[in-house]
Order: sequence, then C-alpha cells, then structure tokens
Amino acid sequence: MAWSSFFRRATSLYHAHPVLIAIATVSTAGGGIFAYKTVYACSPDVNMPKKKVVVLGSGWAATSFLKNLKNPSYEVEVVSPRNYFAFTPLLPSVTCGTVEARSICEPIRNIAKKKHVKIEFREAECYKIDPINRKVYCRANQPADLEGKEEFTVDYDYLVVAMGARPNTFNTPGVEEHCLFLKEIEDAQRIRRAVLDCFEKASLPQLTEEQRKRILQFVVVGGGPTGVEFSAALHDFVNEDLAQLYPSLKDLINITLLEAGDHILNMFDKRITEFAEEKFKRDGINVKLGAMVIKVTEKEIHTKDRATGTMVSMPSGLVVWSTGIGTRPVITEFMKQIGQTSRRALSTDEWLRVEGAANVYALGDCATIQQRKVVEDIEAICRRADKDNKGSLSVKELQNVLKDISERYPQIEIYMKRKQFTSIVDLLKSVQGNEEKEKSTQVNIATFKKALSEVDAQMKNLPATAQVASQQGVYLADCFNRIEKCKENPEGPPRTRGEGRHRFRPFRYKHFGQFAPLGGGTTAAQLPGDLVTYGHSTQWLWYSVYASKQVSWRTRILVISDWTRRFLFGRDSSRI
Amino acid sequence: MAWSSFFRRATSLYHAHPVLIAIATVSTAGGGIFAYKTVYACSPDVNMPKKKVVVLGSGWAATSFLKNLKNPSYEVEVVSPRNYFAFTPLLPSVTCGTVEARSICEPIRNIAKKKHVKIEFREAECYKIDPINRKVYCRANQPADLEGKEEFTVDYDYLVVAMGARPNTFNTPGVEEHCLFLKEIEDAQRIRRAVLDCFEKASLPQLTEEQRKRILQFVVVGGGPTGVEFSAALHDFVNEDLAQLYPSLKDLINITLLEAGDHILNMFDKRITEFAEEKFKRDGINVKLGAMVIKVTEKEIHTKDRATGTMVSMPSGLVVWSTGIGTRPVITEFMKQIGQTSRRALSTDEWLRVEGAANVYALGDCATIQQRKVVEDIEAICRRADKDNKGSLSVKELQNVLKDISERYPQIEIYMKRKQFTSIVDLLKSVQGNEEKEKSTQVNIATFKKALSEVDAQMKNLPATAQVASQQGVYLADCFNRIEKCKENPEGPPRTRGEGRHRFRPFRYKHFGQFAPLGGGTTAAQLPGDLVTYGHSTQWLWYSVYASKQVSWRTRILVISDWTRRFLFGRDSSRI
Repeated sequence: MAWSSFFRRATSLYHAHPVLIAIATVSTAGGGIFAYKTVYACSPDVNMPKKKVVVLGSGWAATSFLKNLKNPSYEVEVVSPRNYFAFTPLLPSVTCGTVEARSICEPIRNIAKKKHVKIEFREAECYKIDPINRKVYCRANQPADLEGKEEFTVDYDYLVVAMGARPNTFNTPGVEEHCLFLKEIEDAQRIRRAVLDCFEKASLPQLTEEQRKRILQFVVVGGGPTGVEFSAALHDFVNEDLAQLYPSLKDLINITLLEAGDHILNMFDKRITEFAEEKFKRDGINVKLGAMVIKVTEKEIHTKDRATGTMVSMPSGLVVWSTGIGTRPVITEFMKQIGQTSRRALSTDEWLRVEGAANVYALGDCATIQQRKVVEDIEAICRRADKDNKGSLSVKELQNVLKDISERYPQIEIYMKRKQFTSIVDLLKSVQGNEEKEKSTQVNIATFKKALSEVDAQMKNLPATAQVASQQGVYLADCFNRIEKCKENPEGPPRTRGEGRHRFRPFRYKHFGQFAPLGGGTTAAQLPGDLVTYGHSTQWLWYSVYASKQVSWRTRILVISDWTRRFLFGRDSSRI
Repeated sequence: MAWSSFFRRATSLYHAHPVLIAIATVSTAGGGIFAYKTVYACSPDVNMPKKKVVVLGSGWAATSFLKNLKNPSYEVEVVSPRNYFAFTPLLPSVTCGTVEARSICEPIRNIAKKKHVKIEFREAECYKIDPINRKVYCRANQPADLEGKEEFTVDYDYLVVAMGARPNTFNTPGVEEHCLFLKEIEDAQRIRRAVLDCFEKASLPQLTEEQRKRILQFVVVGGGPTGVEFSAALHDFVNEDLAQLYPSLKDLINITLLEAGDHILNMFDKRITEFAEEKFKRDGINVKLGAMVIKVTEKEIHTKDRATGTMVSMPSGLVVWSTGIGTRPVITEFMKQIGQTSRRALSTDEWLRVEGAANVYALGDCATIQQRKVVEDIEAICRRADKDNKGSLSVKELQNVLKDISERYPQIEIYMKRKQFTSIVDLLKSVQGNEEKEKSTQVNIATFKKALSEVDAQMKNLPATAQVASQQGVYLADCFNRIEKCKENPEGPPRTRGEGRHRFRPFRYKHFGQFAPLGGGTTAAQLPGDLVTYGHSTQWLWYSVYASKQVSWRTRILVISDWTRRFLFGRDSSRI
C-alpha cells in the first residue's frame, strides 16, 4: 500500500469514527513512528460540568502529569510561582555555563497549548490548602499594584500537590544568609554570577595573597549526586576556561567538598564511590569526609569531625549548600491540618492519595508513599489464600494469590529478587526447617507468616529524584485518563479488607539507573541489573540520555547546541 | 609557487627578521585572507618603563580601542563595572528574546587575551578623575566584604575616557521610579521579564477587563531608532508568540509610542519616516506625535500636547523610556574640574584630546568633538595661502592649500559636497558677483573669506551611535600605535597657529548608513549616497551586516543560531 493511499484511508477512517480512534504520528527521540492513540469521546460530556483538577507546581511531577493527561472531562488549573518547567538534572551544568538556563526551560503554557484538555495557568504561590472546603489560597508573584487582587482562592474537585521541596539547612546557623543553594534556575544563575564575582574580586589591586586565596576558596557542602556534579562542573569551568582568562589567579584556586558521611555518592555502588574519590583526588578537588558543618559565617565555614570531634574552621569565598531536601512551610501546615504531624513529607498511599484528605494527591519531592506492611494484613491474606479453609495452604493455593499480593505489596517481589528466589516455594523453603523441606506441597500458615514477616524490611522510601516524580506524574495522569473505564473494570489487586478489587494498580517505581558526572568528560553510571560503568563513553551515554529526555524539541536542540558551543568556544565568563 | 613552498619561505623569512614583519592569517567575515601585519620591535623597550594607559569603560569605544591597540610599549588597565563588551545595537532584540543576552556579550578578558599588549581588567566603577595628579578613583562592583579594599586608585600616563552615557530623563517626575530604560544588558533582561510579568499579571483571576487592559498597555517614550525598534520588536513578540500562549488576552493588548517631535525617526530621510509611520499604523501600534511626557506614576503616564497644550493621562502597565542620553555624574564632576561647565558632554578637539586636561582622551557617547571654526582661523589661512604676499590669491595658490585646510576643517568638504561643487572655483563662484565671474583666475581675500564663512554652519555634533564610538576607538588606537613614527614624520595638516604640522590627521567620521528595523521582517535603511531602502530584503541586509559586525566568532555564531532558533521555535516566554 502506497503511503498516499494509506494516508487517504486513515483520514477517511478518522472522519468516519472520529470519536474512537485516530492515527497520530508520535515523534520520539528515536525518530517518527506510527502509533494508535485513543481519542476521548468529547460529545457526551459537553453538558456535564467538568471536574476541576488543580495542580500545584510546575516541576517534574506536575509537568509529566500535565503532559500525559488526555481526558477532556477535566478542566485543569495549574498554580505555580514559575511559569516554566525546568530540566533540573542539568542545573549543575547551568551554574558554569555549559548549558544556558533558558535551554532547559519550557513554558508551561507551551506544554498546555498542545493538549485537548483545557489548562489554565496562574503564576502564583499556594500558601494554604483547605481540604475541608476544597480550596487553595494563592498569592501572585507580582508586586502589589493590583489593589489586593494578588491574593485569590481556587476551588478544586481534585487537588494534585506537586510543589517539590526546599533545601534542607538542618537549622545550621548562617546557612540561609551566607550559602547558595542549587534547586531552582535562579539558584544556578546566582552561583554562576557568584563564581565570576569571586574571580573579579580576587583580581582587584591592593589585596594580599591570603585574601585572594580566601576569595577563591570554593566550598561545596554535601557529597550527594548534586554536590559532586557541581564540584566537578566548577572544577572544569575554573580549569578549562577561567584559568586562561585570570592567569595570575590560577594557583590560588581551591575547591573543597565536605561530606558528613564516610563516602561521597554513598547511594551509589561502592565501585563508583571509589572511582569518584580517586578522580577528585587526582583533579585536586579537596574531599573532606566525616566533616559536619556546624556554622557558616561571611568568610568562614566551621566544621566538626564526626569521628574525633575536632572543630576546624576554614576560610571560604563561596559556599554552595546541597545536603538534601526539606519540607516547604505550606506542606508542613497542611500536614498539621490533616494530622500528619510526625512526617518529613506528605504521606500518601500506593495510589498517591494523601492520607487524611479526600481527593488530594501528592507526588514528587513533597510526598512519600507509605507502603502498606505485609504483617499488618497477614491474617487477611491467609484467609484469602486458604480457599478450602483447611488451616493450611497448598503451594497451588499460594501461587494463586501470589500475583495479587505481590502487586499489592511490592516488597515481596523485591525481597525475592534480592534473595534470588524464583518462586514462592523458594521463599517458603528459606524459613522451613530441614525436616519440613521434603513435604513442601503443603505449608502451614505459621510458616507462611514467618516467611512474609521478613519482606517488610525491604521497604524503602523512594529517592527524591526527577525519575520518581516523573513516573508518578505519568501514573496519576493515566489513572485520571481511565477513571471511568476502571470504575467499571477495576484492574487493581483485591482489597485486603473490604470487597472487590482496587480500581487501579498501585504505583510501582521502575528504576532506570542514575548518572554521576565527574568532570573532564568522565561520567559514572549505575544502571539496572547492578551494571556499573564509568569513563568517557559513559559521558556520551549521559549526553544521549539527557538529550532524549528533554521535554520539547526546542530544549533538546538548544541543549545540544549549547554542548557544541562549549566544545567550540568554551564557557562564557561575562558577568550577566 | 606552491602553497607549501610559499609557507616555507614565509616561515624562514619570519625567522630571519622576526622583529620587523610577520605574515599573519587574518580571518574576516568573508573568509580567510593573507595579509601583512607590522610586528612591533619589542626588544628595545624591554628596559624602558612602559607607559600606562588607563581605559575607563568597556563599550564600543573602549573595546575597539583595545582591539586595535598593538603597540607593546604601553601597558593597559581597563576599569569598567561590566566585565564584558555588549553588542548594543541588538539590545532591542534581547528585550523580546529574539536574541539571547549572552549571545551579544564578549568578556573583555577574552578580547585582551588575544593581544600582545599587556592588558589588566578591573571590574569597578570610576567615581572620580584627578587630572592634576593623573589618578582615577575606583570602587569595585563587589559587596563590602573586602575590608575597605573595594576602593582603590589607579595612576595613569594616558587616560582614555569611554564611559558612555546614561539615559536622559529630562528630570521628568516619576521616570526614575516607574520607567524601564534600554541602555545595558540588564535593562533588556529586565524589560523581557517585565513584559512577561504583565501577561502573567493580566492572567490572574478576579481582575476586571479594565484592569487587564491597563496592565497590557505598553508605552514606549521616544521615537528615535531605539524606541521605534523596541516597539516593533515588542509588537512581534506579542503577536507572533504571546498571543498564542495567552489567547484570552489577545484583544486587550495595546502598544503606544510617544514622540515629542513632529515625526518618529526624524534623523532619517523623510521617506523612511513616512514608511515607518504607515507601517506602525497598519500594525496597530499607536503612534502619538507631539506628545511630551510630563509625569509618570505607577499606573499612569501624563502627557501634554505640544501644539494645543492639552493634558492627557493614559493608563499604562509598562513604560520604556528611550529619549536620548544624559551625562554621567562622574563626567559632570570632571567637566567642572577642568572648566567645561556649560557643555552636555566632555568636549575634545579633533584629535579626541580633552580640552583642559593633558593626556586625557575622551571618545564615544561621553564626548563631543568641538570642531574648530574656519572663521576663527581665516586670517592665518589667508596668510598661508598668499605665498607671494600680493594681498590677493590666485586659483593655483588656493588649490595648493585646499587639501590641508579641508583636512583640518572637514566642514569645507561637507559644504562643497552638499552644494555639488567639484572644485574650489565653484565655491568662489558662488559668492562672486556676475561681473567678477569673468576674471576668475585671481580672487581677492575678502571674497575668499566670504566663501568660507558659510561653511561653519555645516558643523554638526556626531550622533551618539556605536558606529561613531567604534571608529573613534580605532582612530585613537592607531594614533597610540604610531606615536613614535608620527613624532618623526608628522602626517597631519599644518598647524594654523604655530610651526610645523600636526602629528596625526584629525579624526574623521565615515558614515556607513543606519538601519531601522520595523518588525514583521521589515527593515528600513538609509545608506551612504542618500540611498533609501526598505522591506524584507533590507531585513536580510540587516541580518548580514549585524552578523558580520559581531566582535568574535563566538558571538557571531550564537547570534545566527539565535535567529535560526527564533525561526524554528519562536521566542521563549519562560519568566527567568
């Protein structure tokens, strides 16, 4: 069939059945492919009042939710103080001008414009959530020349909280005043200017060598992926570009990375940690392990050695603080209202529903999923499994429920994978005494309980990464898209307490690996299946993954052209 | 001769005579060509103390001076609050994101690094010039954590003042507080954010249509090239990009251009003025002529009609003020010290030397050249011309001095060109009575004086443009480069009073034409020889001229890729 005739047929098919299917060209990073896409039946909804979904935030979680929401029976209002989505994994590159700030930003309105769902955007900050009256209170970003109209409320039917987090200072004195953070675009721009300021400051006449050294002492607090990547990026910027422009200062520059733990990048494989520490040592980046920051002043940073308790103070020209995330005040306030007082972040169930607030969903860095423990439900599980009420379970009975329960309790699967069990039989065997191993077609309930009781230890909070937030956004949008369909045909696991099945499958995070760029064209990566790789080729993998993950073709091309520009001309040192 | 053998010979020649000549590849916008370049004899100077040249500023004049300075017997110290050169003619494009700010900036240190002259840069602002002790007082840009070391003085042997100007508010109340200007990179970035702020503000709920209209009323004050280009750029941004993202606001937007004179672009040819006014009318840009702004408040701008005296106030969401330039306080202060109290800018002679301050040069927007009047020197000129002391001049005698005097007094040439005289005879004829025309081989001195007395009316201050500043920088650098050579062989015109010749030819501005981009891919241009052109093809001429005039290959490629990006994806509306 020729393309033209295919196209003609497809068009006529579409015109005949516009409501049900359409053939759409889906352009992916790998090229253009043809795919089927469901088009929602709009006509029956015209007279129905649309449900209002309010989305708080414009980061990874919110944006991937918006991008994937396709059901036109909702109208969406997005409230965020930033009118754009920023590709935050490239923030460390922005601090040094390897990539420009604007190359990683995409206006939310640009994303919304391409949707069939009505999406309104308000550039404002939500300062209070009222779950009882289903209202959020917002304050516009703008200066006060609107006669009090900067504050407004928005009603919701469903609320999606995706406001992210703020840097965690652990209440260390002086951090707020004297440190720079690395969470927002503005932070990255501020760091870039501050680094150049240090070089210009150190170039002034009349200073002593001591003073110049102090000004050119760059300190990074926090040996996590962000802190490490920033140190590496700064080292490259300073050595590849600035050293040539400020030749007299070249030997006075010092970069120090402070980490309170025993190793940098401690969430990575040991091989990567070692490689990174080795590389930093070779590069002359001063890594101090076990150093807890206790105070920051204008010109000094005070640390305490965790092992010996020795207090040390070192001069500093610039301190970048990147030690993890804390809760935003509006979230803390909301948590108080709904009785979640003891938590670090907004607690949700496995369907991302906030516990204690109806129709409120939370995703991304401001939320944590409270995975239900198997031990809490073990009685109900056994009752369900023991179909013949014999008080003991046959292997067959167990295998029948395993799919359901491991969907509901992902920790079972993680545990079995980790222990390299291929079936439930292996799991049971591991707790059965030797004498029982022979007659393993029948299992008593006590053994089963014992086997399951260990799996809860596998539960871990998901990391606060773009990957998690993005997958949660996709998941939630999918639930919203299929809400009607899944009401009729629930596809989730059976309810442990109560009748029937859950409407949706619970959210399940799929880890695709993580990168740690280490500077000088070297990157380390930990890929699924315990695959560890580092070196220049991994840097190219990093380039291609980050280019393909861009939110639009515009940002993709801009980022690639920024990289090319850097190769050709180096990084710019204009102080703008 | 094959290239390889040519290269070998050239190299051996260079090694044999390294001091005198070298063959250098000069890359120009048109491609690579081979050119001869003088290499200065460094060796004799090694033990001589170098003369210190202090340059204040990093704009067009200062940068073209630095780029062209080649004489290594100077050491240069540049003091400027901006560590980069900005290609200011593209500022209106930056306000709307057609071109990114960083694409038109080049660090001064990058420019200095490529020179054989030692150039130091200090990011500081000069706040006082002391011409008696040959010192400039500077204050660093940096916050006060250097224990008073932010202030310093720099001694000079020669001082080059190229600090530019500041916007002129004509002391109109409210302008400083409520208007945005368009002189620096930061101004352009501020305008870009402010325009997006207006759109976000107008998108807030609860506002009345009246309020939204007020917020989206953009007012530009000043119908000069900058004001007109900015209005056009804003119109394109709003209509081509923002209208699609903010569809509900599309019909509320209004752009008004206020001009106190009778026409916009009144320094251009009448045909261009008319074309621009017509085009703006078609585009819906509201041009108000004869409107003098008398007061600006937070939400309103008050104007007075020049003809009728009627006072009008109009609501405004954003006011951009671009009505010409004023003197910086440090220049005013310096002018007071050297007795130039009644002037608008630092007054120099035709060699760019500041009157009343030895070894101080001024160029660019902070200076004006006081062209010496012919009438003041007419006696001396006649004495010089009348070689045979007969009391009358033969045409031959006149022709002998004409070259010298028209070099010293460019107004003669301008006058003759304007009257379409081909020789001095035509000039004399124009003032001779009919009866004298016959015997025109002999001219009496009174007639000659009468002929010359009219030419002074042709003297005009040079416009405050990048073109003038840049040519002045090139000229001054050339004088510094050839100072020793021209001491021995002066090449300037004979001194009218005093003996011998001037060391250098006076500065002569060569006008290459001017562009006025009018939006929608249309540009008007006034080229030398009274050539006027407008339309889309002129826009392409504009593109190629502006690309070729970029200060480095880096900025050239960035600007071109920004234009390409705009064609492909439009302008970005992220509020960063």
